Amino acid sequence: MDRKQLREAMLALLEKDQVLYEDLDLMYYSYDSSFLTKTERLYPDVVVLPRSTEQVQAIMRLAYEHGIPVTPRGAGTGETGGGVALHGGIVMDLASWDDIVEVDVPNMQVVVRPGVVHADLNDHLAQYNLFFPPDPGSSKMCTIGGMVANNASGLRAVKYGCTEQYVLGLEVVLPDGEVIVTGGVRSKAIKNVSGLNLTKLFVGSEGVLGVITRIRLRCWPRPKARGIVMAVFPALDDAPATVLEVYQAGILPSGIEILDQSAIRAVNQFKPEIALPEAEAILLFEVDGNPASVDWEGTTIREIASRRASQVEWATDPARMAALWEGRSVTATAAARVRADGSRVFAGEDISVPLSRVAETLRRIRELGQQYGIPVVNYGHIGDGNVHTAPVIDPEDPAEVEQVNRLVHDIHLLAVELEGSTTGEHGVGAVRRPYAELEHGGAVKVMQAIKQALDPRGIMNPGKLF
Amino acid sequence: MDRKQLREAMLALLEKDQVLYEDLDLMYYSYDSSFLTKTERLYPDVVVLPRSTEQVQAIMRLAYEHGIPVTPRGAGTGETGGGVALHGGIVMDLASWDDIVEVDVPNMQVVVRPGVVHADLNDHLAQYNLFFPPDPGSSKMCTIGGMVANNASGLRAVKYGCTEQYVLGLEVVLPDGEVIVTGGVRSKAIKNVSGLNLTKLFVGSEGVLGVITRIRLRCWPRPKARGIVMAVFPALDDAPATVLEVYQAGILPSGIEILDQSAIRAVNQFKPEIALPEAEAILLFEVDGNPASVDWEGTTIREIASRRASQVEWATDPARMAALWEGRSVTATAAARVRADGSRVFAGEDISVPLSRVAETLRRIRELGQQYGIPVVNYGHIGDGNVHTAPVIDPEDPAEVEQVNRLVHDIHLLAVELEGSTTGEHGVGAVRRPYAELEHGGAVKVMQAIKQALDPRGIMNPGKLF
Repeated sequence: MDRKQLREAMLALLEKDQVLYEDLDLMYYSYDSSFLTKTERLYPDVVVLPRSTEQVQAIMRLAYEHGIPVTPRGAGTGETGGGVALHGGIVMDLASWDDIVEVDVPNMQVVVRPGVVHADLNDHLAQYNLFFPPDPGSSKMCTIGGMVANNASGLRAVKYGCTEQYVLGLEVVLPDGEVIVTGGVRSKAIKNVSGLNLTKLFVGSEGVLGVITRIRLRCWPRPKARGIVMAVFPALDDAPATVLEVYQAGILPSGIEILDQSAIRAVNQFKPEIALPEAEAILLFEVDGNPASVDWEGTTIREIASRRASQVEWATDPARMAALWEGRSVTATAAARVRADGSRVFAGEDISVPLSRVAETLRRIRELGQQYGIPVVNYGHIGDGNVHTAPVIDPEDPAEVEQVNRLVHDIHLLAVELEGSTTGEHGVGAVRRPYAELEHGGAVKVMQAIKQALDPRGIMNPGKLF
Repeated sequence: MDRKQLREAMLALLEKDQVLYEDLDLMYYSYDSSFLTKTERLYPDVVVLPRSTEQVQAIMRLAYEHGIPVTPRGAGTGETGGGVALHGGIVMDLASWDDIVEVDVPNMQVVVRPGVVHADLNDHLAQYNLFFPPDPGSSKMCTIGGMVANNASGLRAVKYGCTEQYVLGLEVVLPDGEVIVTGGVRSKAIKNVSGLNLTKLFVGSEGVLGVITRIRLRCWPRPKARGIVMAVFPALDDAPATVLEVYQAGILPSGIEILDQSAIRAVNQFKPEIALPEAEAILLFEVDGNPASVDWEGTTIREIASRRASQVEWATDPARMAALWEGRSVTATAAARVRADGSRVFAGEDISVPLSRVAETLRRIRELGQQYGIPVVNYGHIGDGNVHTAPVIDPEDPAEVEQVNRLVHDIHLLAVELEGSTTGEHGVGAVRRPYAELEHGGAVKVMQAIKQALDPRGIMNPGKLF
């Protein structure tokens, strides 16, 4: 089946506005937020926008019959090339299929189609005093389907875990067009240990096993209060030491963020009025819960941090919290501006290491940046060892592109060397696939055997994950 | 390979004290806590007690070569026949391999071998101010390996989730003797989204995919305080309505337990000095956290419960808490004594339903008991809809055995009808296997395809799960 026939076949299955193939349309689907797709555009043959399980089935049956690659895609906010077609074929854009099917308040569950945007879901749940805890930085754009496919998380993972913790069941269209429901066909149970846990297998599978078409999520009651502690550390090692003491005090903050010296300077250069204190590290602790708990935990964290920090502040006033948080929230933007001609590279941006190795990791990344002559800004979710690295280069300079590719390769190797992972929350996609054997050894064969069992023709998002 | 050759082959691989085949030994391994194995003893040909990964590998290689069934087993506290050999062969008792390999305090992780007993692990972790939150009723006997294989939980799952939430990585010996490590070969990361989530696939797989030989668990800081609210409800429906209002107040208790009228009467008959108030339902809420939080939540729950309850008490004094909790903790024993000649049947004992259907479920089970003429006691983890049912019969009376088998069949069907699951925490094993299609529909084929991919010779715990 050639490209023209494929487009016609899709038009026969779908409405006209659900099939895209103009150059400009295909261009939009040729990239995501990864550095890979900045340097190399990867075009699909056709883009489809299904809005029912039956439509997804019809597309998959045809793709299966003709061996056509299918790449499911959410909002394209991924940083790994995961939603980009490496081998042409069909990109299945699920972002416009965004129904909130049901909010079941007594059972604290919500059922959604894959295209619902994260922020929209939480806005909707707020009226029921519920929320879906994972909170990626791309909340206002990213879809729940994308979050499930990548097992996304964010600031609050320390206390609330990743997306997988909230997924109770999925409807999945398999490569051959069959539909299954995981977690029980009719089930609304919260606890269910019947059968192999297919739900959790599909979470984080990055579209290589099937298309997720419905998601049943557990929600939690919204915490009534929150507060923030900011602590400034002249010595880098005192930051993780303080985090550990907070844990030892029996406190699990909803978020613990770090800005190292590079991030502090980037923020001050970008927005001097924020005026972060010059230091080797700043920690931000967020606590949430009932008002009494927040007060107790904030006070206790302030006491603990004061043992090592040069400056500590505890705030529950919303305006003051926003001010304290601003340094962290502008970091990603500020990082990109450390060079006037520079552009931030999203690669090697998401390693995770054990908390005990965070200080060493930040130092080693700084050294690697110096070695390759590339400015690097570090920040991240120190509470679970998830370090975000922002190298900044001139992307028009081939020599710098080559250097940054070496740098991020070394950062990935460093993650594994320091008993971590090449990716804490953004996923593997195309860019971290070369590290699968290094990280997982013989387990890769088991992953491949499962892939082969579910997708014998290899049409689901080929070239990703392993 | 006949039975004698198999025993000799095992003796060639292991020390003499690691191979059991005397009648009395085999008898001990012919049952677990299930009703199934009370009525039908299922003997293995040989029992092995490996205490290293290499020994497990050697056993599996031989079993694979000769197509001999292998049934991994922990402490035998399961209620589904999961650790009993349905087709002879080898029972692999992992309970004596009980090393706590490492406690990594800064990274809040512990690495254990499968035989570590749950209570022993938490005793050990207490010195580091850490704990492993899932808390099965069989804590003092059950092994961590068994908990992982069954995705066990218990009272605290409402707030803390099930075992799967804490499993960061596993070492698994595959059916052919190959060893893999899930969650990263050398990883100590807490967040890791690299590759298919094999860890969560093996959790709850009940020994049908491989033998779990090492477990890396996340731990949490120990809460500093706890408290209990007891509330007595003249009308059954007011109990779930109260639970919902507690959630709506933004509170996630660490446990919410229910005793219905049958359980209240059973407890009072068994231990009159406990003197539970006669009512349609009693709820016990446990809250934990920092002292300020516990006080706030306990006070708030007391206020909410008072709207519907005839009697409410809030306690933080350890002696008083123990007294309030006693009614719940003796329920399982009390249930077995509602008939002088009776014996409790562990079957249909673990359904889960949505919270909104709990009252209906309890009523329908009571009606079913009346219909079949069998006394039934109900209690359980109402917070996540997990209902424990205790039918009591004379196990020597074949007519009663037949009636109770019909009753528990109807209870399993009821669970699925009411949008629940046949098992909330105890697992499928041999006894709930007939309901796999009913619960999971076409997803069973996907489970079978994964099983086939990992265990092509079908030697791992055959006859279980689906």
